[in-house]
Amino acid sequence: MRASRYLIATQKETPADAEVISHQLMLRAGMIRKLAAGLYTWLPMGLRTLRKVERIVREEMDKSGAQEVLMPAVQPAELWEESGRWDQYGGELLRLNDRHGRDFCFGPTHEEVITDLVRHELKSYKELPANFYQIQTKFRDERRPRFGVMRAREFVMKDAYSFHLNAESLGETYDVMHRTYCAIFDRLGLDYRPVQADSGAIGGSASHEFHVLASSGEDDIVFSTESSYAANIEKAEAVAPAGERAAPSEELQEIATPDQRTIESVSQFLGVDTTRTVKTLLVKGEEDENGQSGLVALILRGDHTLNEIKAEKLEGVAEPLTMATDEEIEQATGCKPGSIGPVNLNVPVIVDRSAAHLADFVCGANKEGYHLTGVNWDRDADLGRVEDLRNVVEGDPSPDGQGTLEIRRGIEVGHIFKLGDKYSQAMNATVLDEHGKSIVMQMGCYGIGVSRIVAASIEQNHDDKGIIWPDAIAPFEVAIVTLNAHKSPTVAEAGDKLYEQLRQAGFDVLLDDRNERPGVKFADMELIGIPHRFVVSDRGLSAGTLEYKGRRDTDKQDVAIEDALSFLINRSPRKGL
Amino acid sequence: MRASRYLIATQKETPADAEVISHQLMLRAGMIRKLAAGLYTWLPMGLRTLRKVERIVREEMDKSGAQEVLMPAVQPAELWEESGRWDQYGGELLRLNDRHGRDFCFGPTHEEVITDLVRHELKSYKELPANFYQIQTKFRDERRPRFGVMRAREFVMKDAYSFHLNAESLGETYDVMHRTYCAIFDRLGLDYRPVQADSGAIGGSASHEFHVLASSGEDDIVFSTESSYAANIEKAEAVAPAGERAAPSEELQEIATPDQRTIESVSQFLGVDTTRTVKTLLVKGEEDENGQSGLVALILRGDHTLNEIKAEKLEGVAEPLTMATDEEIEQATGCKPGSIGPVNLNVPVIVDRSAAHLADFVCGANKEGYHLTGVNWDRDADLGRVEDLRNVVEGDPSPDGQGTLEIRRGIEVGHIFKLGDKYSQAMNATVLDEHGKSIVMQMGCYGIGVSRIVAASIEQNHDDKGIIWPDAIAPFEVAIVTLNAHKSPTVAEAGDKLYEQLRQAGFDVLLDDRNERPGVKFADMELIGIPHRFVVSDRGLSAGTLEYKGRRDTDKQDVAIEDALSFLINRSPRKGL
Repeated sequence: MRASRYLIATQKETPADAEVISHQLMLRAGMIRKLAAGLYTWLPMGLRTLRKVERIVREEMDKSGAQEVLMPAVQPAELWEESGRWDQYGGELLRLNDRHGRDFCFGPTHEEVITDLVRHELKSYKELPANFYQIQTKFRDERRPRFGVMRAREFVMKDAYSFHLNAESLGETYDVMHRTYCAIFDRLGLDYRPVQADSGAIGGSASHEFHVLASSGEDDIVFSTESSYAANIEKAEAVAPAGERAAPSEELQEIATPDQRTIESVSQFLGVDTTRTVKTLLVKGEEDENGQSGLVALILRGDHTLNEIKAEKLEGVAEPLTMATDEEIEQATGCKPGSIGPVNLNVPVIVDRSAAHLADFVCGANKEGYHLTGVNWDRDADLGRVEDLRNVVEGDPSPDGQGTLEIRRGIEVGHIFKLGDKYSQAMNATVLDEHGKSIVMQMGCYGIGVSRIVAASIEQNHDDKGIIWPDAIAPFEVAIVTLNAHKSPTVAEAGDKLYEQLRQAGFDVLLDDRNERPGVKFADMELIGIPHRFVVSDRGLSAGTLEYKGRRDTDKQDVAIEDALSFLINRSPRKGL
Repeated sequence: MRASRYLIATQKETPADAEVISHQLMLRAGMIRKLAAGLYTWLPMGLRTLRKVERIVREEMDKSGAQEVLMPAVQPAELWEESGRWDQYGGELLRLNDRHGRDFCFGPTHEEVITDLVRHELKSYKELPANFYQIQTKFRDERRPRFGVMRAREFVMKDAYSFHLNAESLGETYDVMHRTYCAIFDRLGLDYRPVQADSGAIGGSASHEFHVLASSGEDDIVFSTESSYAANIEKAEAVAPAGERAAPSEELQEIATPDQRTIESVSQFLGVDTTRTVKTLLVKGEEDENGQSGLVALILRGDHTLNEIKAEKLEGVAEPLTMATDEEIEQATGCKPGSIGPVNLNVPVIVDRSAAHLADFVCGANKEGYHLTGVNWDRDADLGRVEDLRNVVEGDPSPDGQGTLEIRRGIEVGHIFKLGDKYSQAMNATVLDEHGKSIVMQMGCYGIGVSRIVAASIEQNHDDKGIIWPDAIAPFEVAIVTLNAHKSPTVAEAGDKLYEQLRQAGFDVLLDDRNERPGVKFADMELIGIPHRFVVSDRGLSAGTLEYKGRRDTDKQDVAIEDALSFLINRSPRKGL
C-alpha cells in the first residue's frame, strides 16, 4: 500500500477521554474512531489488524474440526423465553421491536439460536459430536462502556457451540478447544494464562478463562508460585490455615469504642492488628416456603474481603447476594451497623475458614459504641458453619498444596464453558442414541473477544513511541520510508522497486511515499507500530545500502540493497515464506 | 473437507413456503435455515459461497483503490436528524433505544456515519478523492420479507462512499466503480446488465443499477434491440410517437355506456381498440402556500400504465404520488370515477406523450354512464401540458433513436449513485481547496447486495437436479465420491490420496466419504451443485481409472488416475493455479 493513497490518520495529542494506553494508541495511530459511547468505526489501519486476528482464529478453529456458520444478529424473543433468559438477562440485552411490534434482541450471545438450529438439524448420535462457530458482530448494552474497543457495546466475537451425546464427549471437545485457544493466543504472540473460572450466570459445570496479563486488566487472576494452578479471583479457593486453632488465653472483655465504626479505626483505637479482628456482614437469606427471608451473618477476618460469588452460592444465602440495609440490620439485631459481632447474635452465622481459626479476637459487641476483646469460638460464640467466604490474597497457600499465591491483573480474551444440558434441556434439544432412545444433548460453548484482542495486544506491546505489533497481526509488516522522494527520482525509483520486491515475496508493505518531513514519517511508522522499517535515501543509495530498524531495536543498521529481502526474511517469523 | 465430518443438511422435499427456485434450492442444499421472517442462518455449506462472493468483491474494491473500513451496525439518531432522514425514512428503518433511552437505529445504510467520519478526518483537497467501503451486516425491516436471502431483513452488503472536491472528480470515481462492478459481476459468472436508474429517495444526480437477468426478478429492465441503451422501467423514457398527430376525422359524440367502468369493457362495448381510448387518473396536486391542494388529472392511452416515479417528479403533482379517493373525485368533478375524461374537465390536466398523439379517441364524458367518441385535442379538449407519464412497453422506440425496446426481469444486485452534496451539505462536510476556501464535498455511493448475489446466481444457474455453481463461488470446486469405501480399503485409500493431491494443488475439495448409498451421494453432490465430480470405485480402480462428470455434462468419462489432477486443471477456469 502507498501511504499517499491511504488514510494515515495519526494524531499527536493524546485524547483526553482515553484512560488506558491501548485506547489512546488506537486513536492516535488512526486505527479506530468513536461514533458514540461504546461504538467504534474501524479505520483502514485498524481493520487490517482486526482481520488478521480473525484469520488466525478462523484457521485454528477450522483445524480443530469446528464448522463455521453465520447466525443473524437480530434474534426473536421467543427463543430467549424458551431458555428463560428473556426475563433473567439484565440491561445489557438490547431489546427491540420490529415494525409489527414483535420482540427481538440484538444478540449478545447465540446459545438459543444455535440450540434451535441443532435440534432441527441433528437427529442421531451418529452426527455427534458437532462444533459450530461464527465470527460475528455482537451487542452488549454496557452501563459504562469504556477503554475503547476493550469494553465496547458493539464488538466482534468468535463464539462456538458444541453438541454431544454424553459428558465424556463434551470433555474431549472441551480439551480440544483448550488446546486450540492456546494455539490461537500463541500465534497472536500474547502473554496469556488459562485460569479456572466460575461458570457464573451462563451456567454449566466447568469453565476456563484465558487472560492476557496487563496492569490495566479489569480482572484479578491468581497463580501458584510453584505449580500450574491458576484461577480467577472469583474462583480461587482460600484454604483453611494450617494447624489447630490456638486455645483461648484472654478473658472476654467489653470495651467502649466511641465513634469507631470501621475495622481500621477500631484496630487502631484498641492497638490490635486487623488480622486479630473479625467483621460481620449481614446479607439476605434465602426465602422459605412462605416467601419470608431473614438475615444471615457472614464473618470474615478484618483484613479479608468478601467473595460475593462464593457467598451467594451457599445454601441459605439469597442469590444474587444482597447486603442488608441499615434499617434491616437494626431491626434484626437491635444494634446499628458498625458494632455487630457473632457473640449472642440472633441470626444464623456462617464463618470464613480464616476467621474460624482465630483465638482471642476482637469483634463488635452488638451494642452501639462497644466492642469485645479476647473473644474465642465455642467458649464465647457458637462457631456454627465454616465456609470459604473470602477472596484470596497474595501469599495465601495454593489450594493444590504447592507454593503460595500470586495475584496479577488480566484482560479476559477467551472463555470456555461446559454448559451441560442447561440450554438443551430447556429447549428440548435431543438426538436418538444407538438404542433409539431420545437423549438430551450435552453442550459446550467457547468464546473469543476478537476485537478486544487487538486492544489487549497493545496493552502488552507498546513503548513511549507507540504500538509494537507482533508480525502476525501488524497492519503492515514492513514500512519503506523514502526521504525526499519528490525531489529525488532515484530515491522514488528505489523505493518503488523495493516495495514491489517485498510485496511479491508475500510481505504486507506500506510504502511511506508521503511528501512529509522525515521526522513526521518516522514518528508515524513507530506510532503505528510496524515491526520492520527500511529507509531509502540518496545518501544510502550512493553507498548501495538501505537503513534498517526493527521496531524493538535501539540501533539502526545498514543493509546492502540486494540483501534487503533475505535480511527481512531472516528477521521475520515467517521465515518459511 | 470430509463429508463425514461436515454438516451436509440436504433435504428431499421442496419447502412449502419457498416461492422462488433459489430459495427452494438454498434450503434443500442445506445452505441456509430460517430463524424468523427475513432472518437466516448461513450453514457451513452456504457460508463458504457467501465468503467467496465477499472475497471477490473485496479484491476488486481493493484493486480500485477503495479503502476498507468497518462501521458500527448501531447508529445514533442524532446523525440521521442532521441529514433529515430520521423523519423521512419509513418503517424499514429499525429504530431502537439503548438502556438509557437514547434513540438509535440498526443501520440500513451508512451515508450519515461515513460523512460524519470524513468531515472530522479529511481537511484538505489534497486528501481527495477518497473512497471508503465496508462489507457489513445491514437491517431493513421489510414489510414483507420474501424469497429467502433475496429480500431478507438482515443481510450482508458491500457499501462504499466516495468524497470529492468537485463533480468532475466524482464522475471519474463513478466511472471507476462502474468498471469495478462489471469486473466483480464478470468474475462471479453472472449474466447481468448495468442499467440507468432513477436516483430516487436517496437523492443525487445520476445512478446505475446492476441487474442479474432472471425470470423471478422483481424489477423490469429495458434494453434497446440495437444499441447499448438500458434502463430500469422507472427510468426508461417513453418517447413521443413519430410524426404529426392525425387531423380530426370524426364528430364528437356522447354515447351511453351503462355499467361499463373499465377501459377494457368500454372498448369492447364500443368496438374500438384500447389504443384508441384514453384513461384519466386523478391524483393530489402540490400544496399551495396556504397548504391547500386540489387534484390533477393525468391522461394516458387506455393500454398504457402510469409510471409513478415519473409522475411524482412533475411540478404541480404531490410527492409521494397519491391517488384521489372516490369521494374527492366526485367532489372535484361532479362525476363518479369510471366516466371521467379531459373534455370540459375542471381540474388541471397533464397528458402523456402517446395520449397527446391520438386523434378521434374515446374518453369518459364526465357524466355517469356516458363516454365520448371522436374526441380530438384542441378542437374538443385543451391539450395543456404534455409529459412522459407512462411505463414503456415492448416495441416502443428506444430513446436513443436506435432500435426498439425489449423488457426483461432483473434482480438488482448493485447500485451506484452520484449523491452530489445531499449529505455533505446537510452535515457540513467540507475541505479547504487550494486557495484555502471551504468547499462542501461531492459524494458518491456504491452498493452491492453480497448475500443477495448468492441467490441471484442460483436463479441463473440450476437445473432439475439442483444448483450449478460457477467454479469461482462454488462451496467446493470438486467432489470426490467414494463407493463402498467402508467395505473396500482400496477405494478408501485411493479416495484419500486423490483428496490430498487435489487439495495440495489448491482446489477446494469435498470428499464424500459418508456411509450412504451411491445414489444418495450423487444426488446430494448434484443438489449442492459442485462443478466437478470424481467417482472412486473398485471397478474403476481395477482399470486404473476414475469416473469424471462436470455438473453441466450429460455424459460421464473415465480418466486415468494419474491424469486426474491435470485433467481437472484443464477443466477448471483456474488454469493458472
